[in-house]
This record gives sequence, structure tokens and C-alpha cells, in this order.
Amino acid sequence: MNMNMNMNDFIQDKNRISIQQEQEGKSKFPKNQWYVVGLSKELKDNLISRKVLNIPLIIFRNVEGKAVALEDRCCHRGMPLSSGTLENGQIRCGYHGLLYDGYGHCVEVPGQDRIPAKAKVKSYFLIEKQGIIWFWYSFDTEPNISDVPDYPYHEHPDYLYDGDVYHYQAPYQLIHDNLMDLSHLAYVHLKTIGGNAKIHMNAEMKVVQNEDQVIVKRHMFDSDPPPTYAMAYPFKSKIDRWQEIDFRVSHIRIWTGGIDAGSDSLENPDRNGFNMRGFHGITPETDETCHYFWTMATNPKQDRENIANVVIEQTRLTFDEDKIVIEDQFKNLKQFESTDMVGIHIDVGLVRARRMIESLI
Amino acid sequence: MNMNMNMNDFIQDKNRISIQQEQEGKSKFPKNQWYVVGLSKELKDNLISRKVLNIPLIIFRNVEGKAVALEDRCCHRGMPLSSGTLENGQIRCGYHGLLYDGYGHCVEVPGQDRIPAKAKVKSYFLIEKQGIIWFWYSFDTEPNISDVPDYPYHEHPDYLYDGDVYHYQAPYQLIHDNLMDLSHLAYVHLKTIGGNAKIHMNAEMKVVQNEDQVIVKRHMFDSDPPPTYAMAYPFKSKIDRWQEIDFRVSHIRIWTGGIDAGSDSLENPDRNGFNMRGFHGITPETDETCHYFWTMATNPKQDRENIANVVIEQTRLTFDEDKIVIEDQFKNLKQFESTDMVGIHIDVGLVRARRMIESLI
Amino acid sequence: MNMNMNMNDFIQDKNRISIQQEQEGKSKFPKNQWYVVGLSKELKDNLISRKVLNIPLIIFRNVEGKAVALEDRCCHRGMPLSSGTLENGQIRCGYHGLLYDGYGHCVEVPGQDRIPAKAKVKSYFLIEKQGIIWFWYSFDTEPNISDVPDYPYHEHPDYLYDGDVYHYQAPYQLIHDNLMDLSHLAYVHLKTIGGNAKIHMNAEMKVVQNEDQVIVKRHMFDSDPPPTYAMAYPFKSKIDRWQEIDFRVSHIRIWTGGIDAGSDSLENPDRNGFNMRGFHGITPETDETCHYFWTMATNPKQDRENIANVVIEQTRLTFDEDKIVIEDQFKNLKQFESTDMVGIHIDVGLVRARRMIESLI
Ligand code: FES
Ligand code: FES
Ligand code: FES
Repeated sequence: MNMNMNMNDFIQDKNRISIQQEQEGKSKFPKNQWYVVGLSKELKDNLISRKVLNIPLIIFRNVEGKAVALEDRCCHRGMPLSSGTLENGQIRCGYHGLLYDGYGHCVEVPGQDRIPAKAKVKSYFLIEKQGIIWFWYSFDTEPNISDVPDYPYHEHPDYLYDGDVYHYQAPYQLIHDNLMDLSHLAYVHLKTIGGNAKIHMNAEMKVVQNEDQVIVKRHMFDSDPPPTYAMAYPFKSKIDRWQEIDFRVSHIRIWTGGIDAGSDSLENPDRNGFNMRGFHGITPETDETCHYFWTMATNPKQDRENIANVVIEQTRLTFDEDKIVIEDQFKNLKQFESTDMVGIHIDVGLVRARRMIESLI
Repeated sequence: MNMNMNMNDFIQDKNRISIQQEQEGKSKFPKNQWYVVGLSKELKDNLISRKVLNIPLIIFRNVEGKAVALEDRCCHRGMPLSSGTLENGQIRCGYHGLLYDGYGHCVEVPGQDRIPAKAKVKSYFLIEKQGIIWFWYSFDTEPNISDVPDYPYHEHPDYLYDGDVYHYQAPYQLIHDNLMDLSHLAYVHLKTIGGNAKIHMNAEMKVVQNEDQVIVKRHMFDSDPPPTYAMAYPFKSKIDRWQEIDFRVSHIRIWTGGIDAGSDSLENPDRNGFNMRGFHGITPETDETCHYFWTMATNPKQDRENIANVVIEQTRLTFDEDKIVIEDQFKNLKQFESTDMVGIHIDVGLVRARRMIESLI
Repeated sequence: MNMNMNMNDFIQDKNRISIQQEQEGKSKFPKNQWYVVGLSKELKDNLISRKVLNIPLIIFRNVEGKAVALEDRCCHRGMPLSSGTLENGQIRCGYHGLLYDGYGHCVEVPGQDRIPAKAKVKSYFLIEKQGIIWFWYSFDTEPNISDVPDYPYHEHPDYLYDGDVYHYQAPYQLIHDNLMDLSHLAYVHLKTIGGNAKIHMNAEMKVVQNEDQVIVKRHMFDSDPPPTYAMAYPFKSKIDRWQEIDFRVSHIRIWTGGIDAGSDSLENPDRNGFNMRGFHGITPETDETCHYFWTMATNPKQDRENIANVVIEQTRLTFDEDKIVIEDQFKNLKQFESTDMVGIHIDVGLVRARRMIESLI
């Protein structure tokens, strides 16, 4: 685990604290959460310019190689710092050359010896852990590192994973809605992992909930393995399948897979068999747009690299299809004043997830 | 004549009636009118997604082949139904598969036996007649089929016709303005049917009006036939020409043509000679955009198909030119706060047409 | 010097006067100023459609060849006159053919003998002088021709010049800011005329001000001539350099150059040596956009055409770079609510220029 900055240093930084107070009370998004702001694979010796939760950020690695985020606005005349250049873990503005360190403090004003006390930009608290870069979103509460979500399948020896970042022209909750219901697979994903609509729709669904999670489970026994499964895993014959959705405010975990019929209890979270473990970090960009950070981890037994690649690429195709549907849905919703929606049985998960978000805003 | 649905069935449909009450009092467009919503040639076994009068519609043929229109918004989670698929005269939503009939009633919820009572979408009343699909726009008044406009030149044995649908980045009344004045031909249509500006501008113009129509007539005697006329019709020598505009709220009919000089009274509406009968259905899409449905019917004596095609294609060119002018005009009007306009003699028709619209809003 | 129209005729024109009263009190821009509206080289026998100070204009040469400006909106139905055609110094509307003279009076209505008294469009007062077309912007004050700025380097026998017109997606004051500080050269213009950042930033800077001007001067003695200078002028060895910015509300003059070290006082405005005299006319288009009219005049001793071209083209490259930076800056500023800016030493010129503008609005 790779922690950014010393926690005490950071919390005592007056710059950061005053920022948070200034914005108090304005959010439309759940506060006091760790949100995904990037994947480690995106951030090498480059700059990332990314707006999250209505805050334009520049993300880069500081002199120690740790991921840091500053407000993307030079304190001098407002240039985006992301148009500047990285100099050994510090960022130089491309207009008049002010140089900032990873805390957002100006450390050089060309042609001027004294650095004005106010010459700094807001900095934000990041933690990079298991290939995911998390961003602490709060107005008044200090971050607790032990609350950073743990995602072991990015460092589990049996698993291989990869992923990507999608930008959505749709608000984040429409992606929640989509992921909380696996039955749309039958219609949206006809060309990839979709199957017989009736079987998907009719499988028994259990929903459980606690303070931080909504869990939707569907188990289908004694089925034929679908083609992707058969390709990826040496099943003997019929299989028991699971689809399990674990909703949290900042991200959703979706476990799907199958095991030789009757060979283990599907209630065992460490059950064997073929596993597809999807991570879905969904972070608002603005009120009407969001970022979608996904990874797919799988545990092939043989020909591991190849099979993992195939599973990941098939996953990507379904996400591409979802993106078209969801953006289309949002565009349409905006055409109508009415927000009436008629509920059906598959909505139970999304209704609970929306209720949880609602309670936090 | 091909009537959609049984009138009594339709009127008693609670779904439809409640819709109309909900919207009451919001319109910026003349109510209790049949507007053109499509040409029959557009609608085969396809879906049309079209917004008219600020209402997003999906238009398709129901199981009996009759044109129907539903609000383009799935009652479940708001997907455009026009992203779905047509299944034997019913429309299936592309997200979770709800199936709707031509009345907008949900007839299937995949994976669920009971169909919720509220699972339906608004439906609208269409009549398809003589190649034109008409849409009843009202908040409180039931449609009267006998009020659907009659347009016999789409089924007259002497006439051939064709047409098209244009989308305009301009409000519908700017097209009215354009069509109510034939004198712009001289300037806008230099390359096609335009002629000597002075002759057009100076011909005597008569305007008559009743409750539902504004009629502008211009007759020009003993003229040379313009090239298109000479090509299309075996005139002996000089001709008497007419230009007659018949404005109605939902559409405009423009009759132009010529006859051997002195061979008939131009007051005879069934006069012989070369006739170009233009139908112009202009339906608001939004406050700032509209649809323009046009057809051109003509009565060549010989080489009928060829000559009709030439006349229709020359007509198309003039409409293409008008579109550029009108969209340009609208873009410019939006730049200015002032709406002052100075009237000139040719405006008499458009002023009356605007007054009629005004009285209906 | 080429004066447009007779001043008395113009001032007594009721049309123009009433316009100005109508708009009274609405401006966000300094009033009672001559602004640049075009370069003479742009206006031959063509129309220019250009919005300045939120006023859409059509600019053309009247029957006497003098530059005139009318509001770009036909008084009949609002078509842009700039879609019309120029007929011997008069402009004919492309819709119904109204013809206007250079004063904005309608002089012909096709098909109608009487011209309505109201048939005219607003006209504005232009002066063309030394290759620059100036526009009088006022609501209540009559223009004084003797106030039109004098720019002798467009007609000086030792100088050659050329220039261009850029459209900026940024408000005019961001260009002022940019030009009032020459030190950004070091960062923005790395590839062209930029030099060592420290030398630029550390040179002593003097700022003087009077009622109409802010002047910023920087002199650098006994330097090596930069490559452009050495190419353009036969220096003996070391040179004394100057950078002088003369800000006025409507335009900025920037003199840079060098002379053999010690051979003349840099305080002499007519000093010899290599001169680059930049003219920068910056005219608001809207609150968020502007026009930038620039010329570069230089005085090569030998191979005059070639060297002038090289100097002008190198200048163009730096302006292209500035445009990217400034538009980027503006886009970023719009993302943030806060308008806080931290001042540094190089801001002294821009602060005074902004204060002068502020005092005039
Ligand atoms: S705007 Fe960043 S240094 Fe001036
Ligand atoms: S949105 Fe149409 S079925 Fe769910
Ligand atoms: S709009 Fe210019 S002449 Fe009619």
C-alpha cells in the first residue's frame, strides 16, 4: 500500500483546510466519501486534467512519486496548471512561470525574490492503493486512511485484471441504476454476454442492505455454461451460476461466475470456479456528467494471459453498449418535464441505492 | 381514405384523455388543429422519432398497419422508445424490454407476470389520408375526423406528385412569412424559377380572407412562358399566369401555372393548362424550430413521369434556397433585441396570416 | 488621410442620433472612444460582416469609396444585409430586394413607388486613416475627428508593415493583460522570440501614466542581439535594447528594438537602430469575445522586403501562441466562481490599464 504524503503534515496545512470551509454546504453529492479519481495505470510521468465533483483538478506525481491533486487554476492569472509542464514533481504554469510543489505552494516566482504569502493553490487529499487513486471529498471532516476501500482482487495472485476510464454524458446515478439491475443484459447485451431474457428475468433475486451497502444476489443452478465461461474455465458439465452486486456510494462490485454444479455452496464468498470480479468506480464530474473507472479481474486456470484478455475485452464491449444506452436515456429524460417512472420488479436494487444516496445529500 | 383506430375506442381511452388535461394551458401554438406529422411515404416498417409541438413522438404502424404515435419515453426508466425495436406492430423498449401496443399500453414486462396498471405511455390521435399523416393537437377537445383537411391532388388521375420533409432551424412562422409572399422569388430564386423582379413585384395582388383562410392571388396576363413552363406544357404562344396562395393554420396551398392566353377564366379553379400545386405542411417542432413537409403535384400532358420529376426537382431547389435564407434570417433576428419591422406592400398576406395565428394562441 | 462623409451631414442625420439615444446607458465598454473596426487592406469591393461592441455591423465602401458601417439587419424582415449584394456602393437585401445607401437610407423598394419614411437602418460613424478603420462608439457625444489616433508608422518611408485580424474567444481585457506584460515572452514564446527567463524578468521596469495612457518601459543595456535582430540589422556588436508598451483604451503600441551599445540615448523616441513597432487594436465583439487587429512595422536597412516579411511572420507566430494561451486561460477562468488573483511584480502595467478601463465604464 502506497500512502501519499504524511497525514499530519497534510491535515495541518492551512491552505487545504480553509478551502474546505469555503465550499461548505454547496454539494449535491454525498460528502465524506473516498471517490475514485483515477487508476494508477493512467498516472506515470504525465499530468491528468480531470474535473470531479465539480472541482477541476490537475493530478500528477510529486517529487516522491506520490499522486497529488491541485485545483487546476494558477493563483496568478487563472491559467489551467494542466497547460503547464511538470518539472521533477513540481508543476510550472505555462503563462508566467510560477512553480508549485505537490502541496500547491508556490515555490518560485520568476524574476521576483519574495514569494507572496497568498501564492498557493488548493490541494486535495489523495490515497493510491491497489491500483486505484482515491480522492477524499469532504467540507469539514478529516480523512481517515483506514476508511479507504480495500480491493484485494487487484493484488491477488490467482487474478489478472485490467480496466479503463470512460467519460459519460450522463449523471452518475444513471450508471448506478444500470449496474444495480443485471437483467438488462438480456436486451442491451444481445451481441455479447446477453442470454435468454426469460431466464435472466425470472431467476430469484435476494436483496439485503446495511448502512453502507446494498447487495443484490441472483443464483441460477444447474445451467449450461455460456460460451465465455466454457472458453475460460474447464467445467465438467452443468454449472451453478451467481450474479452478485455489492453497491457502495463510491463504487459497485459485481461478482459473476460459475462452478461445477453442486461442488460448493454459492454462499461461500471464496468459492472456487470461474470468477469475473468487476470493479466500477463511478464519480460525478458535474451534475450531468461523470467518470466511470472500471476494472475486470478474473482467475483463469490455464493460458492465463490470453483468457484474461478475452474476458476483459468482452467486458469492455458490454460497457461500450451500456454507455450508448445510458447516454441515450439521459438525453431523452432531459426532453421531458415529467420525472414519473413506473416501477417493476427488477428495480428493487436501484431503488434502495438511490435511497441511500438521497439520505447522504 | 385510411382511418387509424376506431374513434370511439380512442376517445374513451383514459390514458390519452388524462394526458391532454395535464398539459392544459401551456401551448404557444394554435390548438385544436390537425397538423402534419409525416408523409405516408416515410412510414413503412420503420420507426420515426419526431418532436412536434414540443412533444417527442415515436411514430410507427400498429398491428393493423395504421399509423400511431406515442410519447417517445418508456414509462419504466425513460429510454426513448425510438431506440427500441418494432415487433409486429408493437414496440419493445431497448433497455429492459417492456413491450407496448399502438395505444401505448404495456402488454409485457419481461420476467414479471403482472403488468402494473400505470405501465403505459401517452398516445396521440393520428389520421392518415391521401398520403399525409395528420396529428390532432388539442388539450381538451375531441378530434373530429371530418375536419381532417382534404387534399385531392395526391390522388387525382391527372396529377403526379412527390415531396420531402425538411427540418428547419427557424420558427414555423418565418416559413409562413416566406410562402405568403411570392415576390421574393425574384431575389432568392435567381438561379431557378426567379424572373424579372419588377414584373413579379408590380403584378396586381388581391387578398381575401375568411375565418380559416387567407388567400392571396396574383394574375399576370399575356406573358411569355418561363422556361420550366415551356418545357412542361405544349403552350401555343403567350400565356395567362396565376400565383395563388391559400393559407391555413396548419398548411399552405400554393397554386401556380399558366394557360394559353385568353383560353379560360383565371377565376375558374379547375382551369386547364399547366398546373403546379404545392402543398406545404408546416408544423412547429419547438419554439425555434419546425418541420416542413412539402409536396409538388403537376399535370403534364406528355412524357408524364419525366416532366413531373423535372418540375419536382426544380421545386426542391427553390425550397433549398429558401431554407438557407430563412435560417439565416432567424439567426440574425436573434442577435437583436428590437423586433421592429417596417412594412411594405408585399407584406399584406403575411400580416393577415400572423394575425390569424395570433388570434388562436 | 481619407475622411468618410461630411461631418455635418452625418451629425445632422436623425437616424443616427436617435440610435445612440436608444442604447444609452447599456454599455459595458468604455464609451466615447474611437475603436478599430477594420484594416483598410480588408475592405476592397467586398462586404465585411463584423460585430463590435455587441453591435452587428455590415461594413462596405459607399459610392465614393469611403468605408461605412450599417446595422446588419434589414429594416423590412430582419435579414442580415451582409447576405445581400453590393451594387455600386449601395447594399441590396437578398430577401425582397430593398436597396440601401451608405447612410442606411432605403433608396428603393422593388415593386413599390413610395419608400416608407421609416425604411432605414442605423448607421455608424467611421474614419479611415493610415490603413486603419476607426469606429466612433458613443451614446450621446458627437465624434471629434481630431481625436482619431494618429499612427504615422503606417505611412513612414523607412518602415514596411503588414498585419492581420484575429478573432478571440476571450474578452478584450485578457489581451490587454497579456500585452501589458512582456515577461511572458520567456514562457509562451520559447520557440520564437522568447529568451532567457531570468533576464527578461529581472530587467528594471518603469511605469508612467497620464489621463489616457499607461506606459511601461524596460531597457536592457549591453546585451547580445537575439537572432531575429542580428538577422534584420547590421549591428556592430553588443546592443542596448528597449521594450516599451504604450497602452490606450482602444489600442496598444509596443515598441521593441535595439541600437549599437552606447550610440544613442534610449530616451530618444526617434532613436535609430532596429525597430519593431507593433500596433494592437483590441475591440470587444461581445462580453466574452473580441477582435484583435495587429500590424508590425519595421525599418530594415537592406533587403527590405525580405527582412520585413521575416519579422512580420515571426511576429505572427508569437501572436498565434498568445491566442492559444489566452483562450485557454479564459476557458479556465469560466470554470471557477472565485475571481481571486494573486499579484506579482510584473502585474503593475496590467493593473493600471484595468483601473483605467474601470474608470471609464
Ligand atoms: S497565470 Fe500562472 S504564472 Fe501567470
Ligand atoms: S426503460 Fe424501458 S424497459 Fe426499462
Ligand atoms: S428582409 Fe430585406 S427586403 Fe425583406
